[in-house]
Parts: sequence; C-alpha cells; structure tokens
Amino acid sequence: MLTKMESEQRIIRLQKELKEKGLDGALFIYPIDVYYFAGTRQNSTIWIPADGNPRLFARKSYARALTESLIEDTRPFPGSKEFPALFGAEVRKIGFTFDVAPVQQYNYYSKLLPGREFADISAINRDIRSVKSEWELERMRHSGDHLCEVFRQVPEFLKAGMREIDLAAEFEYRLRKAGGEGYVRMRAFNQELFQGLAVSGATSGNPGFFDGAVTGRGLSTASPHGASTEAITANTPVLIDYTGVFNGYIVDMTRIFAIGKLAPELEHAFATSLAIQQHLVENLKPGVICEELFFKAAEMAEQAGLGQNFMGAPGENAKFVGHGVGLELDEYPVLAQGFKVPLQAGQTIAIEPKFVLPGMGVVGIENTFAVSSHGGVKITDLADEIVYL
Amino acid sequence: MLTKMESEQRIIRLQKELKEKGLDGALFIYPIDVYYFAGTRQNSTIWIPADGNPRLFARKSYARALTESLIEDTRPFPGSKEFPALFGAEVRKIGFTFDVAPVQQYNYYSKLLPGREFADISAINRDIRSVKSEWELERMRHSGDHLCEVFRQVPEFLKAGMREIDLAAEFEYRLRKAGGEGYVRMRAFNQELFQGLAVSGATSGNPGFFDGAVTGRGLSTASPHGASTEAITANTPVLIDYTGVFNGYIVDMTRIFAIGKLAPELEHAFATSLAIQQHLVENLKPGVICEELFFKAAEMAEQAGLGQNFMGAPGENAKFVGHGVGLELDEYPVLAQGFKVPLQAGQTIAIEPKFVLPGMGVVGIENTFAVSSHGGVKITDLADEIVYL
Repeated sequence: MLTKMESEQRIIRLQKELKEKGLDGALFIYPIDVYYFAGTRQNSTIWIPADGNPRLFARKSYARALTESLIEDTRPFPGSKEFPALFGAEVRKIGFTFDVAPVQQYNYYSKLLPGREFADISAINRDIRSVKSEWELERMRHSGDHLCEVFRQVPEFLKAGMREIDLAAEFEYRLRKAGGEGYVRMRAFNQELFQGLAVSGATSGNPGFFDGAVTGRGLSTASPHGASTEAITANTPVLIDYTGVFNGYIVDMTRIFAIGKLAPELEHAFATSLAIQQHLVENLKPGVICEELFFKAAEMAEQAGLGQNFMGAPGENAKFVGHGVGLELDEYPVLAQGFKVPLQAGQTIAIEPKFVLPGMGVVGIENTFAVSSHGGVKITDLADEIVYL
Repeated sequence: MLTKMESEQRIIRLQKELKEKGLDGALFIYPIDVYYFAGTRQNSTIWIPADGNPRLFARKSYARALTESLIEDTRPFPGSKEFPALFGAEVRKIGFTFDVAPVQQYNYYSKLLPGREFADISAINRDIRSVKSEWELERMRHSGDHLCEVFRQVPEFLKAGMREIDLAAEFEYRLRKAGGEGYVRMRAFNQELFQGLAVSGATSGNPGFFDGAVTGRGLSTASPHGASTEAITANTPVLIDYTGVFNGYIVDMTRIFAIGKLAPELEHAFATSLAIQQHLVENLKPGVICEELFFKAAEMAEQAGLGQNFMGAPGENAKFVGHGVGLELDEYPVLAQGFKVPLQAGQTIAIEPKFVLPGMGVVGIENTFAVSSHGGVKITDLADEIVYL
C-alpha cells in the first residue's frame, strides 16, 4: 500500500509544477497516473488543483476505492450535471495527459468542462514520476531481489533441446510463484511486452516493432515478440531479458546463458557490453546529460568494431542505451540521442548495452540502477557474467 | 499468418462502410487494428481509401513488416514533408479511431494532413471486427482447444492449501507451454487483464475496477485483480476464469472446481447459471436483440431469488451477461442493457452468467460461442459441470 505521506509529497511536487506553468489544476484519468497520486487504480479520475485539496471521483469500484484511496475527498463519479458545478470559474486552464488520453476521453471531459483550456502535461507528469523517493527505491529493491532470485534458478531448468517458449514458461512460473504481478505497463502508444524475452541464437536477432535492441521471433505475427517455438541449442547465447513487477514497481534485467561455449566474437561483444555498463554506471550522477551517455556508449561500441551491431541488427539500431523504469517500463529519462536533460538523483534507469550479431545471436547486459552522487546504485544485485552450463 | 484473401475481404467490408458514411478513407494507427487489415503488427500506420488500394507505412521494423504485410504497397514511414503529398485533394474526410488514439497522435496526424476533417469510426471498426469469417472461427476453435486442454489438467494440480497465486502459476505454466501468447488485448481505456483469474472463496467476491462480475483481490493495490496470496480451502468454490490467446485470437472461459462439497446455495446459483446459459445459447441467433438476452438473463436470476447476486456483489452488479471476443477481449457485441442491435451470424461471444454470494464466493459458467442460425455453437468445448475433487 502506498503511504499517505508519499501521496502528499507527490501531489505537492505536481502542484509546484502546475503553478510554474500557469495551470489551475490537473485532471488525471489514466489508471497508473491515478494510482501514483491516490494509491488506488480503481476506475477513477483525480482532480488535483494547483492550490487546495485533490478530489477522487471513483466509477468502479467506489467501495474498493474508499478502502484504497489516500485522497480524503473520495466520492462516487458525479453525474454529468453535478460534475461541472464542482469546478469554479477560477479554473480556466487544466492539465491533461495528451500522451495516453484517447480522443474520446478528451472530448468527454472538454464537454463536461466547457470554456476551459486543456493543456498537455505529459512531460511534467513523466518528469515527476521519474524521480523516486526512498520509499519507492525500497519497493524497487524488493522487485529486484525477487527477480534476481528467479535468475539464480535458471541453471536448474535451462536445458539443450528445450524450446524458447519452454524456457519462458519455466521462468514465468517461478516469477509468478514469487508473487510477480505480470502487468508490465508501458506508456508509449504502440508498445507492449508480455513479461520479458527468453530467446536464443539466430532468431533472437530478428528485428521487430519493439523499441529495444531485441525483439525475438515470438509465437505468431499477431504477437511477434519474445520466445518462439525454436529449440535452444548448445554453444549459442541464450538471452533472458525479464521484468519483475511487485507492488506495481517494475525492474528490468538481462543475463546471458550458454550451454557449452560461445564464439570469441560473442565473448568480445559481451565484454564490450560490460565495459560500456561500467562507464555508464560511474557517470550515473545528477547533472550528467542523458544523451552524452548514449554518445559515449555508441563511441565505445564503435571503437570495439561493433558500431553496426550496437542496440540492434545492422540498419535496425535503436538510438538509446537505457530507459527509466518504475511504475511503467518506459519511464523518463531515456539515455538517448536528443535527450539533452540532466540526470536527477533518485531516477531509476535500466542500462542495457546489447549487440546483435546476425546469424549468431544477441549478447549484452542489463541492470536497473538508481542515480546517485556516487554513480549508479545497482538494484538488480546479481553477478553480470555469462553463465556457462 | 493471416491470408491475403482474409485481408482483402476485411478491407472490402470496411470500404463499403466508409462509402456509406461519406468518408474518403480511414487511417488506422492502433496495432491490433493494423494487424486486422494488414496481417502485421509492426509499428505502422495503414491508409485504406474508400476506393482504391491501401498503403502500409512501416516505422519499425520495416524489414519485418515487408515479410509479414499483406498490403502490396508497404513502404517505410514517409518523412513529414512526403507524407501529405501522398494524399490528394479528393481526400477530405478521414476516418480515425477516437476510442483508442491518444490526443497526441490525433494532433500529429491532423497536422500532417491539414484542412482535412477527421471523423470517429470506432463503432464501424468494432462492428466489422465483431463478425468472424470461417478462417477466424477456425483460429478461435484452435485457441479453444488449447485452453480446454489446460482446464482438463486442473484436477492434477489443484490442492487444498495452495495459494490462489500458486494455482494461477500452475495454470499459466501449462497455457504457456501449449503456446499461449499471453497478450490479452483490451480496447476499453482503463481496463487490463493479466491472462485470467484463479480465485476462491470469499476473496473472489471482492468488487473491483474490472468490467466483469469477478475481480478478486489481486496481489497489491497497484494490481488489484486476479489471484491473491490467500490459501485455497476445502468446501469452497474455486473459480478459474482464463483466456487462451493463440495467433492473436482470444477465447474466454470459466469453470468451477471444489475440493470437497459446496453449500446448497452455491449449487443452486450454479444451476441457475447453467439454465441462463442454456436459454442464451438457444437464442444466440442472427436478428435477436442483444439487450433482450441480458434482460431475460437478469429475469431468470431474479426468479431464482438471486437478482442481487447476479454479475457482481450486491450493489456492484455489472449490467451485462456476455461480450464479444476475438483479437480483443472486449469486442462487440455486448449482451448488455442499452445494446439494442441484432446479433449477426459469425459473431463470437463469451457468455458468462455468474453469481457473487458475499462471504461464500463466486460460482458461474463461461463459454465462448459463435452466433449461428441454429443458436450458439460452443467454441470452448468442455463439460460445464462443477468439478469436485
């Protein structure tokens, strides 16, 4: 359960931003946004005025929202005649999340509150969310501990001849038994991820829709992502890239396993991943510019003779090397070209330098770190090395 | 893989609707919509003119879209200067899915195509999708067969003392090994489902955000849905409500299990579920009005003395008894109050009369049926009875 103090601090941070931007308040309708401020993800809408107390309007279940919500003024969703009366004439400019709110919802609320200007606060919302409190970092470590525990068990169930989907099933089974919630929420419009990827060898290098280095083949063209029915063979990299979701908080990590040996090119690429991670972790400090970390990573890949293979198959290279993670898998900040903002203490970032070697497979490392004045603090606390079986 | 003929027939049906509504074409950006028409779910946008040939613009991965897309004119996503030039002056009114397209996307495309009117075609899109071809019904039966096979295995792993989450893990493990894709896509703005629900006893009756009869407690307030860590006891109903997703096609079913015996009230409620299902199946014929099936179901519940318990805990009753299912879990039509349209042959509907008895648990039945002139044809072909262990 979210605490009252957490909820209040988040609302205060938002209110400060709203005032700075000249907004009279914000209306959040997206479930995980409502959860972030109110502690409930029941079907509800939260109104947070720039000054004063927030109100939660619960559609379903109101009874359950009452037991979960940390907002004192939690009430059933008002009728379309009562709703406007709750907003005074002083409310003129309303923040709204244009990144996730569908046009129908926008039209609905615009009609409920005529004459008001709606302004996009998607970036403000993501900025606030990106910085985790000590309470949140504790939740993230909890998720990390559980996920690492499943990674530790992989040598017990990874066998030559099993299909990628069998490996995925074994991994997910243990994650679920540990209490994994499975909901890997993503904010980007056209992205989705079912828990993670268990992929191997050449198929792991397939390009795809996913905004990451690795997509895998998947099980059909409707779900072209993650494990396929391909059998896992010896002497080829097995990449396990999974999320762990507990209390809504997501951590993200990747390890490489191999039954037998790996070709020197793959080992060289993996060593380069570790070197890049090492450099980034040392620089994961407040004030460092996000895109500069990406440029440095890309430069190190280039110097290792692997520029074309960095973060994707040649020609399909993703232009990032890390992403914020928390209640959503694709939080701010992104260590990407164009992201010219400085890191802030408490941001949690999955760093994932990876190399796709067509025909051979994918190798790389991924860990979730917290930004601190001493550099990145590892949340997914497990040895990085390739596990040879 | 979707076939070329399927894709063409879908596009022809859409074009007919576009012409009738006076639209010059439709722009689809939502992944499962693009997949429905083009056979690929790569990150892409499809333009379907009311007359003439469609075009697929692929962002990522273009290489993979080329191998999957059934649209002859599949090309990389054009630059913002080239894009407008692809749309002639005759294109004035463009259909767009306001139900799922975020405001940012709407603004982006409005700006790319200035001077055009965008019209909401959410309902048209859902109407077309609701009627399945013979090819789709075959895919649905395939999903049904796999899901039934996992349900058949439940007596092997359901034990007194295991937690709801353990039961969920066992079920999901077998579903995944069978090739289940796990992506349970939902169209409604604030809905989400992680594969299904394995819930039991009193906690299964918890109200919640989910637009269904059953929510369960879940694992946290961030994911307040489905299995909890509660232990399953003897002589209480165990409700397993799961989806099976194969080739993107979802089927939905529920069965009740009990270790030991169930109280007569629960058995009476279950028998009422079967009687309601029987009535609905006999009337699942083209031309029958959806809401009338709901009214009849509610009336039968009332006559059995269970009106308050129908489709939810007293006061939290959902006003439906069935929902369309296919590439999304919440397709058209809905057997619900206010749904005054007639059924059409080939629609696939999950019928789920359920009763929540506070303090005792939830019982009911759910099967996916195809509408036909002979009544509902069962796609989830497994015995309906309570399984006593």
